[in-house]
Amino acid sequence: MTEEPRPTLEAVAARAGVSRATVSRVVNGDPGVRERLAEKVRHAVDELGYVPNRAARSLVTRRHDAVAVVIAEPETRVFADPFFALQLRGISKELTEHDIQLVLLLTEGREDHERVGRYLAGGHVDGALAFSLHLDDPLPGIIRRAGVPTVFGGRPGWPEPGPGEPGVSYVDCDNRGGAREAVRHLVGLGRSRVAHITGPLDQTSAVDRLDGFRDVLVDVDPRLIAEGDFTPAGGERAMRELLDRVPELDAVFTANDLSASGALRVLRERGKRVPDDVAVVGFDDMLPVAEQTEPPLTTVRQDIEGMGRLMARMLLRGKGGEDLGTEPAGVVLPTALVRRASA
Amino acid sequence: MTEEPRPTLEAVAARAGVSRATVSRVVNGDPGVRERLAEKVRHAVDELGYVPNRAARSLVTRRHDAVAVVIAEPETRVFADPFFALQLRGISKELTEHDIQLVLLLTEGREDHERVGRYLAGGHVDGALAFSLHLDDPLPGIIRRAGVPTVFGGRPGWPEPGPGEPGVSYVDCDNRGGAREAVRHLVGLGRSRVAHITGPLDQTSAVDRLDGFRDVLVDVDPRLIAEGDFTPAGGERAMRELLDRVPELDAVFTANDLSASGALRVLRERGKRVPDDVAVVGFDDMLPVAEQTEPPLTTVRQDIEGMGRLMARMLLRGKGGEDLGTEPAGVVLPTALVRRASA
Repeated sequence: MTEEPRPTLEAVAARAGVSRATVSRVVNGDPGVRERLAEKVRHAVDELGYVPNRAARSLVTRRHDAVAVVIAEPETRVFADPFFALQLRGISKELTEHDIQLVLLLTEGREDHERVGRYLAGGHVDGALAFSLHLDDPLPGIIRRAGVPTVFGGRPGWPEPGPGEPGVSYVDCDNRGGAREAVRHLVGLGRSRVAHITGPLDQTSAVDRLDGFRDVLVDVDPRLIAEGDFTPAGGERAMRELLDRVPELDAVFTANDLSASGALRVLRERGKRVPDDVAVVGFDDMLPVAEQTEPPLTTVRQDIEGMGRLMARMLLRGKGGEDLGTEPAGVVLPTALVRRASA
Repeated sequence: MTEEPRPTLEAVAARAGVSRATVSRVVNGDPGVRERLAEKVRHAVDELGYVPNRAARSLVTRRHDAVAVVIAEPETRVFADPFFALQLRGISKELTEHDIQLVLLLTEGREDHERVGRYLAGGHVDGALAFSLHLDDPLPGIIRRAGVPTVFGGRPGWPEPGPGEPGVSYVDCDNRGGAREAVRHLVGLGRSRVAHITGPLDQTSAVDRLDGFRDVLVDVDPRLIAEGDFTPAGGERAMRELLDRVPELDAVFTANDLSASGALRVLRERGKRVPDDVAVVGFDDMLPVAEQTEPPLTTVRQDIEGMGRLMARMLLRGKGGEDLGTEPAGVVLPTALVRRASA
């Protein structure tokens, strides 16, 4: 089997029936190209899977001194989950120190992601920070095609790039290692029926935490695993399911703190004492949530604001000539168990 | 005294020492102008107070299918106060229905507002929605100079435009009438020492609510008025001040629900029963806050999400040829007293 060569700018121009210059202008988000021509070029880019050479690109495009943030969740979720506010806080501080405008692109949902791609490709920002990606969401592909330097929050779930293909830059925390530590802590307390409330399993963070749980409890009874969605309501639902299936469970590791807050409510409702009857460990150490639960939550700490700051820093470092696309970096930050009353 | 003529495009070109075409391109956010020239033009625009003719402008600029939202508060406040999430929800729904991208420009504070102005003027959006303006903030002037059609949330506090000057479009609620209704309700309950915790008095909404309070209690003892800042912590501080000054007060009208939640905490702390000893009325009817206070809060309802939606609708109606700048509209929505246990 011969390896297919990477498509070139020339190939895109030939396919679209336009000049190299026109392709270059469309790829670089120059607004001066007629929409009919631009559409042809974008179509050819899609068909051929063309990825622009970002190093060259950074030399011809002007700077906008603006960076877009794309969160692959509806705006209602963005404002309801303090995780996003914390990550944005880190991003905002870092960008402001460099006098770069933070441009948050809000959507009602996934059906709006093509429009986000058009804005990114339209020459309005110098780069993008994207987080909370889902595996079946077209957004990662849309962001790639938009051709702006991007740093992802959380390891993207698509396959590893082949040789010669551009990689991706991302910042993540050690989800799997943190989950292992949480579960080992519960096992160390003598708990023998440890359940897990997962996050949405179309996100790598949730999958990695589940993998960490299974690393420790290799032969776990599958009835002890219930899927949540990182929200308090999802934690409540999953906790009810688990108690109905395995009433004698004596510990729960939840994939984040908001899920734990929901699970704790249900445990209280069912008359279970925490940690005496059921020990609970969360993930995030999101304050004030983790301190205000009843009882206060033992949890796996990750530095959410710091992750945001680092994402922004990596993107800025890649500006002005360096090529993020061909020198990608995946940075994985450590986690640490924080012990409070719940386990 | 002769009236000064409105500065023209020609005057700006002469002052900057560039061609009319260059001024036009800078004003319209064309990215193709060298930064040194663009800077000269912006300087001349500032000096002369030039306001672009937006009707003409809309004919020459391309559409970006994007609208900026500018909230004149640091991003920490934007994410901590549910008022902004509600207003953004209304805006997001309306823009999404028209497939227009919501671009939220976040800042760390007022010192970043010049940068926001540069982004607005840079040809990245078709219009702007701005809210939570403060009287001493340069942002309103910066937004005007950016020359993009804008609808304001809340009546701007600057002086009424003179003849020939462009007016402004805004959406507000009947702050003064709502405050009057709240205070009349307290007086109707037989309360004779009614206090007021104001909002930040550099915002028209806070000033208008204070005016409404004074409309009813014309000769009020000034010790019964304390300045808050629309936050729970500000409500706590102001409530302590009031109780220290006038321990026998028997009612409080707070300028918003978050302030009321802080005031209620202090009243409880001081052993005052609500409403028996002190009746409390808030403003906003922000859910779930107003329902979850102890006791649930009597308050003045305004439709926050609906105001956001209407702002977006007014801006979109003004696009594509119509001139928002010369046909401004101030829309004031009604309020209604919602009775719960606190008064």
